[in-house]
Amino acid sequence: MSNAPLTDLEIARRATLRPIAEIAQAAGIPADALDFYGRYKAKIDPAALGAEHAEPRGKVVLVSAMSPTPAGEGKSTVTVGLGDSLARAGHKVVIALREPSLGPILGMKGGATGGGYSQVLPMDEINLHFTGDFHAITAANNALMALVDNHIYQGNELGIDPRRITFKRVVDMNDRALRQIVLGLGGPAQGVPREAGFDITVASEIMAVFCLATDLQDLKRRIARITFGYTYDRRPVTVGQLGVEGALAMLLKDAIRPNLVQTIAGTPALVHGGPFANIAHGCNSVIATQTARRLADLVVTEAGFGSDLGAEKFMDIKARSAGFAPSAIVVVATIRALKMHGGVPKDRLAEPNLAALQEGAANLERHVRNAAKFGLTPVVAVNRFATDSPQELDWVLQWCAGQGVEAAVADVWAGGGGGPGGDELAAKVAAVVDRPQQFAPLYDLDLAVEKKIETIAQQIYGADHVEFSAHARRQLADIEANGLNRLPVCMAKTQYSFTDDASVLGAPSGFTIRVRELIPKTGAGFIVALTGAVMTMPGLPKEPAALRMDVDDDGGITGLF
Amino acid sequence: MSNAPLTDLEIARRATLRPIAEIAQAAGIPADALDFYGRYKAKIDPAALGAEHAEPRGKVVLVSAMSPTPAGEGKSTVTVGLGDSLARAGHKVVIALREPSLGPILGMKGGATGGGYSQVLPMDEINLHFTGDFHAITAANNALMALVDNHIYQGNELGIDPRRITFKRVVDMNDRALRQIVLGLGGPAQGVPREAGFDITVASEIMAVFCLATDLQDLKRRIARITFGYTYDRRPVTVGQLGVEGALAMLLKDAIRPNLVQTIAGTPALVHGGPFANIAHGCNSVIATQTARRLADLVVTEAGFGSDLGAEKFMDIKARSAGFAPSAIVVVATIRALKMHGGVPKDRLAEPNLAALQEGAANLERHVRNAAKFGLTPVVAVNRFATDSPQELDWVLQWCAGQGVEAAVADVWAGGGGGPGGDELAAKVAAVVDRPQQFAPLYDLDLAVEKKIETIAQQIYGADHVEFSAHARRQLADIEANGLNRLPVCMAKTQYSFTDDASVLGAPSGFTIRVRELIPKTGAGFIVALTGAVMTMPGLPKEPAALRMDVDDDGGITGLF
Repeated sequence: MSNAPLTDLEIARRATLRPIAEIAQAAGIPADALDFYGRYKAKIDPAALGAEHAEPRGKVVLVSAMSPTPAGEGKSTVTVGLGDSLARAGHKVVIALREPSLGPILGMKGGATGGGYSQVLPMDEINLHFTGDFHAITAANNALMALVDNHIYQGNELGIDPRRITFKRVVDMNDRALRQIVLGLGGPAQGVPREAGFDITVASEIMAVFCLATDLQDLKRRIARITFGYTYDRRPVTVGQLGVEGALAMLLKDAIRPNLVQTIAGTPALVHGGPFANIAHGCNSVIATQTARRLADLVVTEAGFGSDLGAEKFMDIKARSAGFAPSAIVVVATIRALKMHGGVPKDRLAEPNLAALQEGAANLERHVRNAAKFGLTPVVAVNRFATDSPQELDWVLQWCAGQGVEAAVADVWAGGGGGPGGDELAAKVAAVVDRPQQFAPLYDLDLAVEKKIETIAQQIYGADHVEFSAHARRQLADIEANGLNRLPVCMAKTQYSFTDDASVLGAPSGFTIRVRELIPKTGAGFIVALTGAVMTMPGLPKEPAALRMDVDDDGGITGLF
Repeated sequence: MSNAPLTDLEIARRATLRPIAEIAQAAGIPADALDFYGRYKAKIDPAALGAEHAEPRGKVVLVSAMSPTPAGEGKSTVTVGLGDSLARAGHKVVIALREPSLGPILGMKGGATGGGYSQVLPMDEINLHFTGDFHAITAANNALMALVDNHIYQGNELGIDPRRITFKRVVDMNDRALRQIVLGLGGPAQGVPREAGFDITVASEIMAVFCLATDLQDLKRRIARITFGYTYDRRPVTVGQLGVEGALAMLLKDAIRPNLVQTIAGTPALVHGGPFANIAHGCNSVIATQTARRLADLVVTEAGFGSDLGAEKFMDIKARSAGFAPSAIVVVATIRALKMHGGVPKDRLAEPNLAALQEGAANLERHVRNAAKFGLTPVVAVNRFATDSPQELDWVLQWCAGQGVEAAVADVWAGGGGGPGGDELAAKVAAVVDRPQQFAPLYDLDLAVEKKIETIAQQIYGADHVEFSAHARRQLADIEANGLNRLPVCMAKTQYSFTDDASVLGAPSGFTIRVRELIPKTGAGFIVALTGAVMTMPGLPKEPAALRMDVDDDGGITGLF
């Protein structure tokens, strides 16, 4: 037991944190722009950064990954470690990450604050309530729905069809039982019965709007544009028609400011916003990214899961909407994940297996090629695990060289981002950033929604066809009729496969993507396309992580990772 | 328009706040014990207060009121104004208030942070998300229910009967449509269908437990004791049996620390916890009250609504459980409320009407007599409104004198707690505090639950009888069988009337209290008795206040009071 490796939480608790005021000062953030949340967290008012930080001029490095497996990839770990290593090399760096969602934390082990010696701190606080942003988003979302159902109950002046409300209530919880409900039961005093459901907070359009808004007024405008349902004569009804965008924006006025924390190595990190990339657009907030670009020369950020999900949406939705171009893309791979994609079961991943590596490399190859489709030069980061053999690591580096792709082993979990383990990766990324890139989104907005989906499915996923359900076909017609054809698409798809079936690993071909539903998110400004069986409300496993969690007299936590 | 009186929000925004570190220092709170939340809010770690503040020795002044009316009473305003006035007289004072709930704020005008020049600041932040305590309570409550429904879905090892789950999910929102729902719909993959519902967060047993716990470990023990439902063979099932009390306490580890803010006059105030007094026990947290008693000679606190609700529960539940005795009780009355209880409609309250005053004084009389039933000397505070005539104010003071009751006009809304408007009230309260009081709870815990309810209904409400529904009779038998007879009772009753019918004003007699349901809250340690039509989830009005709320570019709010 005494020789057991430290857990992420133990490493985090042993780290020495600097007061966040010191981190802010080192990053050039004026004291006036800070509101403290405890000793090691602060919110930044972007309006108070001062003339010296007026322009977002920092270059953006996006960290993506191969298709995730239960073996773990460590994308956040590499993001933090790369940021630390670039800072160690003398670059002025700010890391920009998403905030973790509470629901999955109570369900399955695995946080979103990095791991080992490449973590953002205070990891327990960031993983629990942090500065309350997700709670504020939940409150704004549910205030809207309480106001909508109250409007219907009080006479329904807008003529909202209770059977055609597309917006749902949310909880930041994995709560399977709330996926499909009937509410308003109990007779005339309790409301108007209708079918409804809850999503997890990260799937809320309020979250998407929060992450795409450029400031508080833009947030309010976008909220006003949200379509929450349809009238009896099938016209869209917006939040603006209900007249509550001011109240909802009010509930988000503090949350909208980016949160400053630090890595174990002391690099400043903005952790803000957090839609999942399988059911939403998967990137941290535009406000945080742009604030980071005003403060630093290099901004290291991540987008959820593989290049098929977060990275595609980063390019086609976030970067396009915010008007900036990323300068490099890092694709995280691990020996273990490559072997799983090559057919090795989870309990045999410790055994060297070059044949499986070769087989699994097809998955990595597609992700690397995807980067090039946006005009960017990929760099592969092989996130080193203790079980990796030197032969396997060499094989992957040589495979990359054979593909003409830059690659480096990132030893940032065990070595720590403050140590030399990420130096080579940092050097290769810095070299790519200095080269001119020809960034362009994958598709043009003038393309029809149907064609946009086909373009993503064929060029990024490698699909042959896209099949639209009869329901989705009718929705395509409605989208056209409502003049929403120019919106980009936000694909909702399993993260585990290029296909819409989570069990199909590797780099499959000859498959069909099935789109079962299309939901216009007119506030966020995209059309969500639900494929396969992807759920917007996860469930808890048979043995939830919550069973192992505890807190001692002094507020010290155990069982959280 | 330019001569319109300032709104509470405008007054609050014009006030000059001192950095909360200064307020803390003046209150003798060591810097080590503080965690800042922005510039004007801090959480206090009671364990770090130091030896000088080891003992809770401050005397407690409880502010109660006559039965509330739509005319408004200003109980929080008087609490803040009295605290300021006692501080102005040289006493070392800390005010202890409840945190506001967001739901009613979006529904109807009227905050919980005082009014006029007797407010706690920053009022907008306190009234919105504050330091996130209610969000943490909501999360802990809903984590429990997600884990319960997941347990049933994953095989139901504990044999929980889905038809006998007494615990509900919560939102901090007035959301009528969620009162009664069916969840778990959609087939085997989505859960097990059952009838369920949402309460408002302030009605959650987690809130009650939060407010009665003496520290984090006591909180965890109480959470473990919560009964959330019954098995198929009708045995109670607790959180401890599910094994998730550690995770839930973990979610509350920061929230459990009291929040420090300041009044407009600069008096320190602890604002912490906030159950409603009509559907829950209606007092701020024991931890905050005891922390205030460690810091100050005089603690001014309030309990929700009239003496029949918050004050009774303060005495019989909170003070008994925490082991302290209040030293004085203030009963807030207004000329307007007295006239409403005397039969004057709301639109004619500005007209002088001594006959109606006399008629309405019967309501005040019963509240004043109730104070004496706990062995305490009442002081009547007549909260002055601009429309009050000198004759009316004189009449009430003379009526009090005739009853042998101390009374003073409190001119703290317009005058400000820092001015002389509350001096007379403060002097009378200070004199009462110095006299020995013989505090005792109303009933003995050995009394049967049925008898406890009858004692409260007859002695405090003035009822003739208590009628138990057949359902409640069966529950009384279960309470006896499960050994819960020694618990105190938490009455859930309308605040507007001594009866269980909100429309019966004044001081009615010869009525029956109808108990329709009894819910043992084994974590909080009381039995909730639901009377009449009281709802644990409020609804929104036809024109919710949210329609008038807005936020400007700088985050400045309008329409919030």
